[in-house]
Amino acid sequence: MSTGGNSGATATNKQVILRDYVTGFPKESDFDFTTTTVELRVPEGSNSVLVKNLYLSCDPYMRSRMGKPADSALAQAFTVGQPILGYGVSRVIESGHPDYKKGDLLWGIVGWEEYSVITPIPDMHFKIHHTDVPLSYYTGLLGMPGMTAYAGFYEICSPKKGETVYVSAASGAVGQLVGQFAKMMGCYVVGSAGSKEKVDLLKTKFGFDDAFNYKEEQDLSAALKRCFPKGIDIYFENVGGKMLDAVLLNMNMHGRIAVCGMISQYNLEDQEGVHNLSTIIYKRIRIQGFVVYDHYDKYSKFLEFVLPCIKEGKIAYVEDVAEGLEKGPEALVGLFHGKNVGKQVVVVARE
Amino acid sequence: MSTGGNSGATATNKQVILRDYVTGFPKESDFDFTTTTVELRVPEGSNSVLVKNLYLSCDPYMRSRMGKPADSALAQAFTVGQPILGYGVSRVIESGHPDYKKGDLLWGIVGWEEYSVITPIPDMHFKIHHTDVPLSYYTGLLGMPGMTAYAGFYEICSPKKGETVYVSAASGAVGQLVGQFAKMMGCYVVGSAGSKEKVDLLKTKFGFDDAFNYKEEQDLSAALKRCFPKGIDIYFENVGGKMLDAVLLNMNMHGRIAVCGMISQYNLEDQEGVHNLSTIIYKRIRIQGFVVYDHYDKYSKFLEFVLPCIKEGKIAYVEDVAEGLEKGPEALVGLFHGKNVGKQVVVVARE
Ligand SMILES: NC(=O)c1ccc[n+]([C@@H]2O[C@H](COP(=O)([O-])OP(=O)(O)OC[C@H]3O[C@@H](n4cnc5c(N)ncnc54)[C@H](OP(=O)(O)O)[C@@H]3O)[C@@H](O)[C@H]2O)c1
Ligand SMILES: NC(=O)c1ccc[n+]([C@@H]2O[C@H](COP(=O)([O-])OP(=O)(O)OC[C@H]3O[C@@H](n4cnc5c(N)ncnc54)[C@H](OP(=O)(O)O)[C@@H]3O)[C@@H](O)[C@H]2O)c1
Repeated sequence: MSTGGNSGATATNKQVILRDYVTGFPKESDFDFTTTTVELRVPEGSNSVLVKNLYLSCDPYMRSRMGKPADSALAQAFTVGQPILGYGVSRVIESGHPDYKKGDLLWGIVGWEEYSVITPIPDMHFKIHHTDVPLSYYTGLLGMPGMTAYAGFYEICSPKKGETVYVSAASGAVGQLVGQFAKMMGCYVVGSAGSKEKVDLLKTKFGFDDAFNYKEEQDLSAALKRCFPKGIDIYFENVGGKMLDAVLLNMNMHGRIAVCGMISQYNLEDQEGVHNLSTIIYKRIRIQGFVVYDHYDKYSKFLEFVLPCIKEGKIAYVEDVAEGLEKGPEALVGLFHGKNVGKQVVVVARE
Repeated sequence: MSTGGNSGATATNKQVILRDYVTGFPKESDFDFTTTTVELRVPEGSNSVLVKNLYLSCDPYMRSRMGKPADSALAQAFTVGQPILGYGVSRVIESGHPDYKKGDLLWGIVGWEEYSVITPIPDMHFKIHHTDVPLSYYTGLLGMPGMTAYAGFYEICSPKKGETVYVSAASGAVGQLVGQFAKMMGCYVVGSAGSKEKVDLLKTKFGFDDAFNYKEEQDLSAALKRCFPKGIDIYFENVGGKMLDAVLLNMNMHGRIAVCGMISQYNLEDQEGVHNLSTIIYKRIRIQGFVVYDHYDKYSKFLEFVLPCIKEGKIAYVEDVAEGLEKGPEALVGLFHGKNVGKQVVVVARE
């Protein structure tokens, strides 16, 4: 990288490229690396911003952008041969945008590359005002996954003190927070995760009342019955499939299921069938899907709530940090095999 | 029957008995007839009521009471060797209850027999005050199915003028009303049913904008796409299974699914799997199960609304009337084969 003066200066720009549309589980070989050159300035008169990417976020939803355009109903497909896109934390190098100036920090959608030229869009890019916390948190606790946990739990679950709450993929970016929010509200909270290490984390670090390794349970419904002898009032759904079926058998009357994600289904050609849906009639269950984008208007309220919690040690956050953009594809595909312990972050530069 | 004075008078009492717990589809042979003698008085000092049953209601939920006690999670199982129970319209013959007197009419849970001794329970038995409508309507439009349509549509679907509404089992006791309520609200309404006759009814009698015979569609999702080129905002779910899967593919953003019933699953040993649930995330769909019992507090409000509609001809109601208690089992099991055209009623006595 050759910075220096900004007029005419350029830098090399390493990028993670989508090699071809993905079917089934994504593999490292679905991605390529390339290195281009970026001019360290924004075009005259444009309102775009040149940023240096510091941290990139590995998020399960990115799988939906890897498929063929027609397949990706949630999000626009990535472009083959182009850098993939995702949430990141970035430093402004040069700005043509009135709201951003050189040196500012922001989080939001950028390319998987060292430098990105973006046009900031409200509710897609957020200026970072609080830097007395780890910057990488803006990919997780203080970013999209944090808002997901916050909106999903408080807005969608309609939680009440004393209720029982079950969280799947509980040690992940979103789940670890949902569990802690639920504990703060006075709920009884159980989480599941895919390894002993994660289960220990849930119980010791995040204060879950109980936790189990779903991979070691022969009978998921029996595991839930053991953990919730009086049934589940709230299920924070991250995984779908067989787990949802088992949960339906253990829900209480007037239970609520916030459907945040169904990661167990994202890589399957044919989605698994869920068989126990008729329980929702007599149990008067509400199942509600939601997407975090609809809730970004509460972001500053969320920060007001969560920043003090961090500073007072009331909320813990575990990250799994991959060092270097080269490690990005491995970290990203690892999500779908449970390789990450906590929020999966990729460090591009520590400045 | 030998009425006469009420002291010491008796009558023969024909009854429909559950022969054994039912597995799979109920058959006529699952029921027996027996004739006992009933004393035409209530025990001294009791608060029970002796009623003569006029109309009995055939309702799909009754299937859940026919299984072995452990199997029936919704409702208490019927007792083998005893008369089955269901909604009916009855005349009070003798009463020890302060709220009922001889000659009163009521609707609510009675035995499948000519005379029943009941202990009226609020929200299970309702005195009939309006008799300028067909009495049998209190098994349907003015009874439990009517309240189901009313609460299910207005309370659970959160309908708005101009929205698109799909109703399955649309010509039935509940469905025909949901469609008419939705039309009154200014929605675009499509129904499905299992015969040409029923489809014609939907379009000509009940004012549905469109209707289709689901048994003649190779591809349910394509049928829904044809009827709802702009997607479905509200699905009133009566059948479950494959239909729900097809609907999920055609729901709009922020769509609502009121889960009233899943009749296609009631007689299966293994419930069918529903595969398209992950659509509820990015479409932000709400799926809400409900049970009419929770809404009986709105019954008088419902009557205030619906009685004028009947009198002004704004609401039509089609009944399928089986004559005589002997026809009861056939009518009841017919529900699960779509034999009924409209609300299935059994006439026990026309007085
Ligand atoms: N609705 C929204 O707006 C929104 C926003 C953000 C995230 N989400 C969803 O929230 C969920 C969690 O996201 P996150 O960012 O917190 O990810 P994460 O939990 O940090 O990482 C994914 C985890 O999912 C688990 N997993 C992977 N494959 C699985 C399978 N087949 N069955 C069960 N678990 C599996 C793995 O943990 P184990 O070791 O425990 O298996 C893995 O570590 C995902 O479904 C995601 O799509 C939704
Ligand atoms: N949640 C509650 O409180 C509540 C209260 C009342 C009723 N319900 C439910 O509401 C639904 C309708 O009840 P209803 O009283 O109005 O009954 P109905 O529609 O009058 O009669 C049942 C109808 O269901 C259809 N059907 C039967 N088997 C089917 C199958 N395998 N696939 C698709 N359709 C099938 C048949 O019509 P086709 O000819 O069209 O197939 C049949 O005529 C039922 O699921 C019932 O359990 C729920």
